[in-house]
Amino acid sequence: MQKIGKSERLIFITSTLVQNPMKLFSLTFFCDKLSCAKSTLSEDIDLISQIFEQTGQGKLETVSGAAGGVYYIPTMKKEDEIEFLNFLKNELQNPERIVSGGFVYINDIVFNPEVIKKAARIFVRLFLEKEIDYIATVEAKGIALASYVAQYFNKPLVVARNSSKFTEGSTVNISYISGTTGKIETMTMAKKAIKKGARVLFIDDFMRGGGTVRGMKDLLSEFESSLVGVGVLIATKDKKSVDVDYKSLLILEKLDAENKRITFSINPQVIS
Amino acid sequence: MQKIGKSERLIFITSTLVQNPMKLFSLTFFCDKLSCAKSTLSEDIDLISQIFEQTGQGKLETVSGAAGGVYYIPTMKKEDEIEFLNFLKNELQNPERIVSGGFVYINDIVFNPEVIKKAARIFVRLFLEKEIDYIATVEAKGIALASYVAQYFNKPLVVARNSSKFTEGSTVNISYISGTTGKIETMTMAKKAIKKGARVLFIDDFMRGGGTVRGMKDLLSEFESSLVGVGVLIATKDKKSVDVDYKSLLILEKLDAENKRITFSINPQVIS
Repeated sequence: MQKIGKSERLIFITSTLVQNPMKLFSLTFFCDKLSCAKSTLSEDIDLISQIFEQTGQGKLETVSGAAGGVYYIPTMKKEDEIEFLNFLKNELQNPERIVSGGFVYINDIVFNPEVIKKAARIFVRLFLEKEIDYIATVEAKGIALASYVAQYFNKPLVVARNSSKFTEGSTVNISYISGTTGKIETMTMAKKAIKKGARVLFIDDFMRGGGTVRGMKDLLSEFESSLVGVGVLIATKDKKSVDVDYKSLLILEKLDAENKRITFSINPQVIS
Repeated sequence: MQKIGKSERLIFITSTLVQNPMKLFSLTFFCDKLSCAKSTLSEDIDLISQIFEQTGQGKLETVSGAAGGVYYIPTMKKEDEIEFLNFLKNELQNPERIVSGGFVYINDIVFNPEVIKKAARIFVRLFLEKEIDYIATVEAKGIALASYVAQYFNKPLVVARNSSKFTEGSTVNISYISGTTGKIETMTMAKKAIKKGARVLFIDDFMRGGGTVRGMKDLLSEFESSLVGVGVLIATKDKKSVDVDYKSLLILEKLDAENKRITFSINPQVIS
């Protein structure tokens, strides 16, 4: 940059932080790039932080000390979360979503970037304190959502598969009972996928009885790693035998396929 | 916002545009939010545009007229693209990636947000002129990459599956020969997934002979839609019988499993 004034600094800092969620940038990095004093930079960061808070575009967190700096936390304002969850609820209650077998068609939802970006921001808020090392999901419908959560946490995504693919080298496999199919299924993950002692957040699109979650927990224990949270877009009202902090954004209250009626509610735990 | 000066405007506009790639915001939207004149806003946008160009953080495009406005195109500087592709090449050439069967382990790469975000930005540049309506991929390894491309193009992602799942309602199925397995496989997509007459960009992690691409093309023709481009992370040197504009970022030059040597090159078509 040729002439670097306050305007140029604010544009560069805002764009850099927002494009790299949860990535810590040292003040020295910005001072060098922008040829400015740390005190000047601190004022800029305070201002950006204020505007973000006021407009609900997320938060800036500053870390003091030698290894300190600043990073961006991609969250939303509470009222924007509620507005989004109401939109999602209404969208899902469209009776045309009921497909044969009494299932709900949600592919367009779970692969729509506008929708899953916002859902991912809510999961950031819900699991921010968990010190997560990896985001995990099971193929295939949860991958796009989990990938946004991974981006926002700035952590790698690992994907368990339902059958061992020979392009992954040696794998760890476990069996579990799927709540959706009622059948025994296999979950498999490459041995190279996760380091020992990792803390993992599991993200998926849909949860019934929690069979997949228990499967994931068993799989992770083979990696000497632990499941520290579960975030799903939609859960049924079935009893979940899951002993981990889990949050669903929406709850499927009732699906009456015969009369083409389907009802969701917003999980009160999420917006309380 | 209480007091809205130039600094506040620049922070808000930068953050809003960057967080919503390819989404057109009318000047009126910003004028209303920021209580400023259009001429003032135009100056702000010009300045942001200049800083983005200088620092390689993407581009702003302005559209004039009544339906006009401004949007953000997430691209990178040429030298950053080349630096990234060299990094990726070196990362992939690690002999430990060679797994049994003479395959290459790339799961950590294709699910690493830092990597696929940058790859997605290159695909934005490569296919910007194609007037794309959907991004398509096939489960499962390409989903995260395709999901970033979809986010950056601000278009829905559609995912074809290798077996029909009963939760998707009626589906369209086609058979194709996979270059990776050499077997006849099935590709399936929900009937609701794509509207008629759509222009589709296919994104995947790996391409051998192009069987999957031909499969996708056949599948799309069932939706009276057309494949207008193919972007893959890695392609082998095998002859591709594919009659569509396709670009791979890297080329797998040689895999010598016995001597644990693996060589990639950067596709000259991409960086020319």
